[in-house]
Amino acid sequence: MSYPDDLRERIDRHLESIRFSGEAATAGLEEAMRYSLLAGGKRIRPVLCLATARSLGQPIDDYLGIAAALEMVHTYSLVHDDLPAMDDDDLRRGQPTSHIRYGEAVAILAGDGLFAEAMRTLAAVPGDTSRVLEAVRLVAGATGVAGMVGGQYVDVTAEQLDSEQLLQLHSLKTGRLIEVSVESALAYGGTGSADRAPYERFAREIGVLFQIVDDILDVTGSDEALGKPRGSDERHGKVTYVSLYGLDRARELATASHDAAIAALGEVDGEVGSLRSVADYIYRRET
Amino acid sequence: MSYPDDLRERIDRHLESIRFSGEAATAGLEEAMRYSLLAGGKRIRPVLCLATARSLGQPIDDYLGIAAALEMVHTYSLVHDDLPAMDDDDLRRGQPTSHIRYGEAVAILAGDGLFAEAMRTLAAVPGDTSRVLEAVRLVAGATGVAGMVGGQYVDVTAEQLDSEQLLQLHSLKTGRLIEVSVESALAYGGTGSADRAPYERFAREIGVLFQIVDDILDVTGSDEALGKPRGSDERHGKVTYVSLYGLDRARELATASHDAAIAALGEVDGEVGSLRSVADYIYRRET
Repeated sequence: MSYPDDLRERIDRHLESIRFSGEAATAGLEEAMRYSLLAGGKRIRPVLCLATARSLGQPIDDYLGIAAALEMVHTYSLVHDDLPAMDDDDLRRGQPTSHIRYGEAVAILAGDGLFAEAMRTLAAVPGDTSRVLEAVRLVAGATGVAGMVGGQYVDVTAEQLDSEQLLQLHSLKTGRLIEVSVESALAYGGTGSADRAPYERFAREIGVLFQIVDDILDVTGSDEALGKPRGSDERHGKVTYVSLYGLDRARELATASHDAAIAALGEVDGEVGSLRSVADYIYRRET
Repeated sequence: MSYPDDLRERIDRHLESIRFSGEAATAGLEEAMRYSLLAGGKRIRPVLCLATARSLGQPIDDYLGIAAALEMVHTYSLVHDDLPAMDDDDLRRGQPTSHIRYGEAVAILAGDGLFAEAMRTLAAVPGDTSRVLEAVRLVAGATGVAGMVGGQYVDVTAEQLDSEQLLQLHSLKTGRLIEVSVESALAYGGTGSADRAPYERFAREIGVLFQIVDDILDVTGSDEALGKPRGSDERHGKVTYVSLYGLDRARELATASHDAAIAALGEVDGEVGSLRSVADYIYRRET
């Protein structure tokens, strides 16, 4: 089965419809936020959220707010990661990065604004308030010190940690947000903890899988397909799955994670076609 | 009556007790976050939150989570505003700013981390979930495009706006977060809209008052008292209450705002001594 493009189209349309303020004075800020938010991509995180809703048999549209918030958080992290003081990347998805296009100050603020608007969007989702609040707590937790920001800190600064710790913490950087894309949908769906378990295992595995494949692609991908120069990790002296285990073993680990993710879906009591397609895509992607 | 130091001590003790993760790998990030969070100051925003709780006759301790979140958001905004790409300030409260002390990458991440942990802290406040969720929504809204980040964007970029718009938007930068320090406490307290009205007017007035006094102090304060070089606004070519109206008229506007804030408190049905002391402090402060 191919990537769930129907869900991607739904989230794309929804993201395009979002206006943050409409005030003339902040129009330039909104433009910068939308420039990065609407730069395309597979929308893996929001699609995972919507695919989880589908698997739970819930109305997809009810989850668009959570899905949009997840993509805003992801976009904010990319904008800040690309900054000169961080990874100093000029290209993202084949386009100039935010700070190249709008300058560093606006890029910092566009990231800050996307994060704030993500949390506002999330907290404004209608429905059962205790479920919405749990989703807020999960997403905020996945972006904090024990998640995305903590992972990025290790990525930028760590030198004296051993490899195991580094891998664990690299996975915080991307893995936690991918995991929480499924977990927040489960929370909002009011899914009981027994029913959550296989979804959560699935989410954990594809979080790891995403990171392994990312590390492989940084070595094997073409500049054109990646939309950025290949070999960026090596240039930055980062410890990755490839630097640690070599390319062949990294590929084996990816296969093992993919298999474990699919196995977890086998225990789910519901439609899992869309979730499975996302896992397949993450495993086979070339960009 | 003097500044409500009992409330300030309570929030200071609470902030000191916060640990974000405890992982060795992110200890440096936590240190940077705590360096800025525990740098002192009058804690106006959390004290306003706790003073509102006191005025509502509610247990102060129940509001410490919201209060801490407000101070984390405020600290995050200072860390990012000080960055080289933004206001490029080396000193804050007489100490080296975060990027001087820890480097630019860590300063960006310390800000991001404080924001994420603020939202996580806020969403983890126990009690009525619909009230907590409203508080999250209010705080996130006050930090976004129609609040703090939008105001900072205008501060950094605007040149072709007229002065009225500029003042209005400058007030977003600091005013909205001060307002929401009261509003979030009202939301969590479950206060009805009729009872909220005078508090909200009070909050709006002290938000404006804070900005006017800030602009005045930038011209009249001593470097030592401010903990940073005086005249920073003028050097950056910013439109302020002083540049627009002159010093005398700015002082009159401050007095009018203070009077209006006190008048609003007169309509509150509850103890207002602590709230009044904060307004007095904002009006008379010299740093």
